[in-house]
Amino acid sequence: MSEKSRPSFPLLPEVMTGDTADVYFLRARDSLRFLDKDPSVGMEIFTRKHAILCGVSQVVQMLADSGYNGELWAVDEGVAIEPSEPAMELFAPYSTFGVYETAILGILASSTGWATAAKEVIEAAGGVPVISFGARHVHPNVAGIMDYAAVVGGCVGCSTPLGALLTGTAPSGTMPHAYVLIVGDTVEAARAFNATMPPHVARIVLIDTFQDETVEAVRVAEAIGSTLEGVRLDTPPERGGVTPALVDEVRARLDLAGFERVQIVVSGGMTPDRIRAFQNVRAPVDSYGVGSYISGARGVDFTGDIREIEGRPVAKRGRIPGIRRNPRLKRVL
Amino acid sequence: MSEKSRPSFPLLPEVMTGDTADVYFLRARDSLRFLDKDPSVGMEIFTRKHAILCGVSQVVQMLADSGYNGELWAVDEGVAIEPSEPAMELFAPYSTFGVYETAILGILASSTGWATAAKEVIEAAGGVPVISFGARHVHPNVAGIMDYAAVVGGCVGCSTPLGALLTGTAPSGTMPHAYVLIVGDTVEAARAFNATMPPHVARIVLIDTFQDETVEAVRVAEAIGSTLEGVRLDTPPERGGVTPALVDEVRARLDLAGFERVQIVVSGGMTPDRIRAFQNVRAPVDSYGVGSYISGARGVDFTGDIREIEGRPVAKRGRIPGIRRNPRLKRVL
Amino acid sequence: MSEKSRPSFPLLPEVMTGDTADVYFLRARDSLRFLDKDPSVGMEIFTRKHAILCGVSQVVQMLADSGYNGELWAVDEGVAIEPSEPAMELFAPYSTFGVYETAILGILASSTGWATAAKEVIEAAGGVPVISFGARHVHPNVAGIMDYAAVVGGCVGCSTPLGALLTGTAPSGTMPHAYVLIVGDTVEAARAFNATMPPHVARIVLIDTFQDETVEAVRVAEAIGSTLEGVRLDTPPERGGVTPALVDEVRARLDLAGFERVQIVVSGGMTPDRIRAFQNVRAPVDSYGVGSYISGARGVDFTGDIREIEGRPVAKRGRIPGIRRNPRLKRVL
Amino acid sequence: MSEKSRPSFPLLPEVMTGDTADVYFLRARDSLRFLDKDPSVGMEIFTRKHAILCGVSQVVQMLADSGYNGELWAVDEGVAIEPSEPAMELFAPYSTFGVYETAILGILASSTGWATAAKEVIEAAGGVPVISFGARHVHPNVAGIMDYAAVVGGCVGCSTPLGALLTGTAPSGTMPHAYVLIVGDTVEAARAFNATMPPHVARIVLIDTFQDETVEAVRVAEAIGSTLEGVRLDTPPERGGVTPALVDEVRARLDLAGFERVQIVVSGGMTPDRIRAFQNVRAPVDSYGVGSYISGARGVDFTGDIREIEGRPVAKRGRIPGIRRNPRLKRVL
Amino acid sequence: MSEKSRPSFPLLPEVMTGDTADVYFLRARDSLRFLDKDPSVGMEIFTRKHAILCGVSQVVQMLADSGYNGELWAVDEGVAIEPSEPAMELFAPYSTFGVYETAILGILASSTGWATAAKEVIEAAGGVPVISFGARHVHPNVAGIMDYAAVVGGCVGCSTPLGALLTGTAPSGTMPHAYVLIVGDTVEAARAFNATMPPHVARIVLIDTFQDETVEAVRVAEAIGSTLEGVRLDTPPERGGVTPALVDEVRARLDLAGFERVQIVVSGGMTPDRIRAFQNVRAPVDSYGVGSYISGARGVDFTGDIREIEGRPVAKRGRIPGIRRNPRLKRVL
Amino acid sequence: MSEKSRPSFPLLPEVMTGDTADVYFLRARDSLRFLDKDPSVGMEIFTRKHAILCGVSQVVQMLADSGYNGELWAVDEGVAIEPSEPAMELFAPYSTFGVYETAILGILASSTGWATAAKEVIEAAGGVPVISFGARHVHPNVAGIMDYAAVVGGCVGCSTPLGALLTGTAPSGTMPHAYVLIVGDTVEAARAFNATMPPHVARIVLIDTFQDETVEAVRVAEAIGSTLEGVRLDTPPERGGVTPALVDEVRARLDLAGFERVQIVVSGGMTPDRIRAFQNVRAPVDSYGVGSYISGARGVDFTGDIREIEGRPVAKRGRIPGIRRNPRLKRVL
Repeated sequence: MSEKSRPSFPLLPEVMTGDTADVYFLRARDSLRFLDKDPSVGMEIFTRKHAILCGVSQVVQMLADSGYNGELWAVDEGVAIEPSEPAMELFAPYSTFGVYETAILGILASSTGWATAAKEVIEAAGGVPVISFGARHVHPNVAGIMDYAAVVGGCVGCSTPLGALLTGTAPSGTMPHAYVLIVGDTVEAARAFNATMPPHVARIVLIDTFQDETVEAVRVAEAIGSTLEGVRLDTPPERGGVTPALVDEVRARLDLAGFERVQIVVSGGMTPDRIRAFQNVRAPVDSYGVGSYISGARGVDFTGDIREIEGRPVAKRGRIPGIRRNPRLKRVL
Repeated sequence: MSEKSRPSFPLLPEVMTGDTADVYFLRARDSLRFLDKDPSVGMEIFTRKHAILCGVSQVVQMLADSGYNGELWAVDEGVAIEPSEPAMELFAPYSTFGVYETAILGILASSTGWATAAKEVIEAAGGVPVISFGARHVHPNVAGIMDYAAVVGGCVGCSTPLGALLTGTAPSGTMPHAYVLIVGDTVEAARAFNATMPPHVARIVLIDTFQDETVEAVRVAEAIGSTLEGVRLDTPPERGGVTPALVDEVRARLDLAGFERVQIVVSGGMTPDRIRAFQNVRAPVDSYGVGSYISGARGVDFTGDIREIEGRPVAKRGRIPGIRRNPRLKRVL
Repeated sequence: MSEKSRPSFPLLPEVMTGDTADVYFLRARDSLRFLDKDPSVGMEIFTRKHAILCGVSQVVQMLADSGYNGELWAVDEGVAIEPSEPAMELFAPYSTFGVYETAILGILASSTGWATAAKEVIEAAGGVPVISFGARHVHPNVAGIMDYAAVVGGCVGCSTPLGALLTGTAPSGTMPHAYVLIVGDTVEAARAFNATMPPHVARIVLIDTFQDETVEAVRVAEAIGSTLEGVRLDTPPERGGVTPALVDEVRARLDLAGFERVQIVVSGGMTPDRIRAFQNVRAPVDSYGVGSYISGARGVDFTGDIREIEGRPVAKRGRIPGIRRNPRLKRVL
Repeated sequence: MSEKSRPSFPLLPEVMTGDTADVYFLRARDSLRFLDKDPSVGMEIFTRKHAILCGVSQVVQMLADSGYNGELWAVDEGVAIEPSEPAMELFAPYSTFGVYETAILGILASSTGWATAAKEVIEAAGGVPVISFGARHVHPNVAGIMDYAAVVGGCVGCSTPLGALLTGTAPSGTMPHAYVLIVGDTVEAARAFNATMPPHVARIVLIDTFQDETVEAVRVAEAIGSTLEGVRLDTPPERGGVTPALVDEVRARLDLAGFERVQIVVSGGMTPDRIRAFQNVRAPVDSYGVGSYISGARGVDFTGDIREIEGRPVAKRGRIPGIRRNPRLKRVL
Repeated sequence: MSEKSRPSFPLLPEVMTGDTADVYFLRARDSLRFLDKDPSVGMEIFTRKHAILCGVSQVVQMLADSGYNGELWAVDEGVAIEPSEPAMELFAPYSTFGVYETAILGILASSTGWATAAKEVIEAAGGVPVISFGARHVHPNVAGIMDYAAVVGGCVGCSTPLGALLTGTAPSGTMPHAYVLIVGDTVEAARAFNATMPPHVARIVLIDTFQDETVEAVRVAEAIGSTLEGVRLDTPPERGGVTPALVDEVRARLDLAGFERVQIVVSGGMTPDRIRAFQNVRAPVDSYGVGSYISGARGVDFTGDIREIEGRPVAKRGRIPGIRRNPRLKRVL
Repeated sequence: MSEKSRPSFPLLPEVMTGDTADVYFLRARDSLRFLDKDPSVGMEIFTRKHAILCGVSQVVQMLADSGYNGELWAVDEGVAIEPSEPAMELFAPYSTFGVYETAILGILASSTGWATAAKEVIEAAGGVPVISFGARHVHPNVAGIMDYAAVVGGCVGCSTPLGALLTGTAPSGTMPHAYVLIVGDTVEAARAFNATMPPHVARIVLIDTFQDETVEAVRVAEAIGSTLEGVRLDTPPERGGVTPALVDEVRARLDLAGFERVQIVVSGGMTPDRIRAFQNVRAPVDSYGVGSYISGARGVDFTGDIREIEGRPVAKRGRIPGIRRNPRLKRVL
């Protein structure tokens, strides 16, 4: 993908001013100035886990915007990195990037955590498309970026307009339970949705609000006929959640009624394990919506180590001195 | 605390425009407008876990800024809520807040997750002060808000200026390893730090960069004498991390050298379990810095259910119709 | 209860002729006759587990019918016996009961197994009445006797006419899914049931055949009004089974519609653990139907040991010679 | 095997009159008569487990005796069926078989449970013959039928005359401990047994009543010489039960004394796991007697679902409408 | 106990010459001589576990024999010491004891390991006497010392003459299986033993060599009558080992035959867990013989740390400098 | 290896006089003399585990010294024996070796236990040399013999002069912490060691006493230059013990400073599992010192059974009568 044409990632102004940095970087800056020390250093950034790297583009944008003019090398966005593999390396006078260490590590930690979780989901789904539905489980300041990372990890789409913009996709979504409740009947809700949506919006109707899913699925299909693209099952845990047997029966009753082309979309607490349980059953799921498994993923912590000062190998106790060669690093700034 | 005098929480402009909302709320808005339906509804917001509620102030600010003029009731920020207890209730025409449902739930999910994790740490520490050090493990767009939630959960301070501003504290921090490495010697680094910092900044020196901690602790204490407030141990996992026995020995060697008043600050992968292991040993820790246990906490998912339409009890399948009375709710808008 | 007026337990004629005995008892009889040995022996019958004793009445009936004229002592039907406590003792010439050893032990094993399982269910239900519904999971030759044992263990009723006859109760039951399916609509099925049943039969309607239970419960209540005594939930595992949350919601929706007096009966794979999960929730269950947990209970194996021959203590290797005194034994023949 | 020549299975008269049926089938019959509904239905019978099907012959006999004149299709007795595979299908007016549903399912549940457990034992024994010894652990009304099912599952014989009759085998058995105790000496007991049994009865002597098994085995072999076919070890748990080392030593001591042709029969709490422990040792067991593992097996629950009414696919909620084709079904009535 | 009158512990001459020391102590001695350094040091000896201290007397004897003339302080033999509690302290010029460090630690490690295991056995036995039978499981160079440690840990006696001498007890033992096998009959063996042993040797006969224990116990009791003090059960694992049920039955059969005063001694793989299983049963065990649980106990490793040089607190990295005060230390040299 | 030239194993005189034997062997001797029975017997000695046989040479020496003139057959020292395989067989009049049974079994138990543990360590180390360092964890009466067994199990050397003598190796060792502490500085200690040791002693310096290992390693290398053969890491548990990451870093810092030929020796609580953790890392360990894993190994218990008397197969209950043929047995006396 071309980084050029991509819309920029939204960052709070406080990030650029250093107000979200650990304060000790600000203090270190002052002390070094007092000592009149500003050597050129080499910093290596790595994590201790297997992970899908994400956040590189945001780091590039942030450093470019800050006026950084050292070298920046990085592994490509979306690549599977190894434990302790150098994922990024900076070479520059320390004063020109020191206060951004917190932000660099934080961008990588959150983004890589989301992308890695998305990848696990994608592998479990074995080819069935997955959409990121997690915006409601994460702070809105990062919701769009989380959706971006989910797409880097393999999702085909996401639910927020911002996430869609960042990834060049169309935002995905059906209708909320609130809408169906306010309309008061699933069939009537489906008809109004069908009447008002522009043509490019898929007609996928949520069918678990009032009645048993097998009953509503057929009622809706009979009501809006061939324009119905799919039904979404989001059965609450109080009703046992969505199960393979439920999908199987909805499929069978739709088929018996002649609606073989209506698709089935499944959402609600989906995890790789639960998705795998759907893969060996008779009736296939047509797509999954996955939320908190991705959005709630623990960050993948990164570490930034100075390994070289003015060309000399150094390291703090516990680390091997010297910059390592990683052929997968490319120069990005 | 007075909500009045608090500086406002930074939100991306995309949050207010709805670009971080699930797109289906935008679609529902259009369909309901077509049906000319805009009933007054009652929505109840709850989670399924024991948790420390956080994010209420942000929601109040966001809805106030949006021009919302319905009723908003909420449990107080920082209160321990029960599984399925109503934490917030809105009463208003649906069109006036529907598109903010994603943001409301997301703010509560992330903030409550961080505050709850902080509380677990605080309880483990049994009175020893804890400082939030997690900014480097989380996206900078939420780093300050994470620090705010950590303080709501009981931390006495945090490392980012933004977090400090939001909580009315002074930002906390010592010095990074990078600083000590660049200076090239711990004692010289301590001296420069001492010389440049304004008086209100505590002289706490990081002592694990080059030499064994017990050696450096005494060297630094001898160098900068009575101005030294404390030493920070952040021993890397490659050297066994910080352990109770290490604290015990640093304490003993400092005491033998006559530095009984120098405090010991511990950081590096601290969790409630690890902190508990420090509580029954001879030499006390004076404070803890805790990072990814708090910042990496999984969000606490919230659900928003319409339970009343124009005064009538309703609910989707799986939920009990009707708004519940919770005496802990207070009217906040 | 008076043993006198009780109808007799049905036994196959093959039991009385010895055709269901282990053949080696028949062979032992022949060899002892050849040796002209027929000492008076004392036999002790015990099990190795905590259990609710059941089957004593059947053994008494069988031995009485066989013409046995020795002594028979037994602990009361329904008593909780201890591991290795003598539950029954026989004193008679060996030839007069030897071939019945298999049948005696078998009656006790099966009956005690069922009664013990029933007791576990009763204790879990904590006062809520339980009905034995297990006839369909056990061979019809013992279905009525299983129901009898379930009542000995504490059930208030059972589903078979034979079990009801043996326990002096009225048989319990609502309607099968087959009936509702054939009628084609739950409300119509309820009306016909109401119209045809004699007054003493409780109007309890099965509501999970076609639609969501909360929808059907209210429809049925509105259709047959105050004659409706209860609704039965037997939700299949494919729909998550019956859960506390489902009972809670059915109760709430019935109450909202003004049917506070309609009871809720729960069945379908109930076990003590699952029943306990219903005990601490808001809406109480009014009664349980329990099937395979009772009917499928493993038999409680009994052992018959000769411990005395012509008044002398004896025992096979591994057992203590001599008859033990158990004050809970009463003479029954 | 030819069903023609088989003696009939004993059923209590109460089974044929419906007194062992769930009473709700009787009530459904009355209500349907009132509605004048008696459609032709298709019912499918299946279980949710892997199992060895048993009980088909009994169901055929019962329905034939009841005058049923619809179609009955079934998988063969003794076949390994899959979870949810249709094991039996009935096509007839509902009134002609409805009240037998309880009995059909109960016969299949108990019989299939026993046959399946027997099969597990047989597989563990890897070719060594196994005899069903469980009559004493099960109600005598089903003892013979349990033995029949054990043979369907692979046992070569059983201990009850009724079971032997139903399976066309000779009943198997040695002598009970009671017999040896009454005679007072194992050798004398063996001599009397030898003297009185007809020629076709195998001379297998129980050798654990009074003395160590290795002592008695040689004493008995020396006493009755070449007519001794085998010795049976049924060592009580108080003496460690029968172990591979014990069999090994009995074999060695018999061989040293010149009795290489005397066989060793093992019984007493045998399970597949315990049997497997005997398979890799020096001295082979010649046959096993297995009791409560088979007779105490939990029933394998079957479900009967109406899937077709007057040729139309139907099903209750949770099941797929329509009769499934199973090529293993054969028409049996 | 008075250390004065105790016979001396046997030590190999190689121990006194330093040939069993780690060679590096010899080398350190040479290097320090070269440097002309021989400061007075304080050494602290401790373990990291809860343990029963044993070996102090041996260390005292060894150092006294070596001509050591510094101070030696120690906790009393047999005392329960805490993790890291100073168990012994030496104050002397390093050259006067350095080469004995290996031997001191080794004596304490082995002896304390045995005494600690013995204590666990004693606590499990709850007052029933225990005899150390482990000589056969340990190298004969330490067999007597192991027996000594077992008595320090609470055993009332031991099986070796050397152990008996060191502890001032009479050696305990019955007869080996070899003896009974050679005599060829348990009763004859018992008679010869009775005839030849001096009066002070207890007549305890081993009864599991040829026949079932219950048979032999009564035979022996009838043969040597009132001189029989006890029977020993050492049933091999091939016969299920000694179990509570076996003791119960032997007791019952002895009592029935009028030998209530014959005691029961149990041995063979006894561990604290197995002993506890005997404590709540009807028939009490009169004494236990315990072998490999004690003799095979892992050593309890001790560490010797120099904590003071010429009165100054010192310590290697990881230890707290300075000698600790332990009020339980007494001066022993 | 030639048994001829080997120095003899040191045994206490009490072993030869029978004072470390179980007293019952002495008593059996007296009773058999009374009965005038002294048959020629065949005794078989075996264990129940997989093990590395050790102790045969000691048994040969002891019996030869005792004047034994029967036959003695044994499997070779150091061979891997199977559970219950005959490891040794004696054929002689019982009176000529009976009292040595305890010593024979004890020698084999301890020696085989140590050799077996050593073998596990060797296999984990996969070719990296291992030295036995366990003398300090075991009683000095057996320290040299333990070292001998460790070498039989595969160690290339050991730390005691006696062990070295018995195995024909040079004793191995570096310097103790006590030495470094007394000298007061690691570099000075290294210089003095270098100056005083004869040429054949390897210059291996212990580097964890005062400072971080990476600091000391380079300091020492710079001080004594090319005579330095290696550094030993024995980091205490209070500092996390020796870890693969520490070895990696010491290697890297030595290499950076130009000391690629300095070796790394690791000791301190090494076990097979911990050693395996070092095998797949970048920087190789050059040798291991292993102590308590070998010296604290539980003895491998042996059993001695009489299986033949005057040529007749016999055995006690639980064992198979008759001597078994084992082709791996060789005649050694």
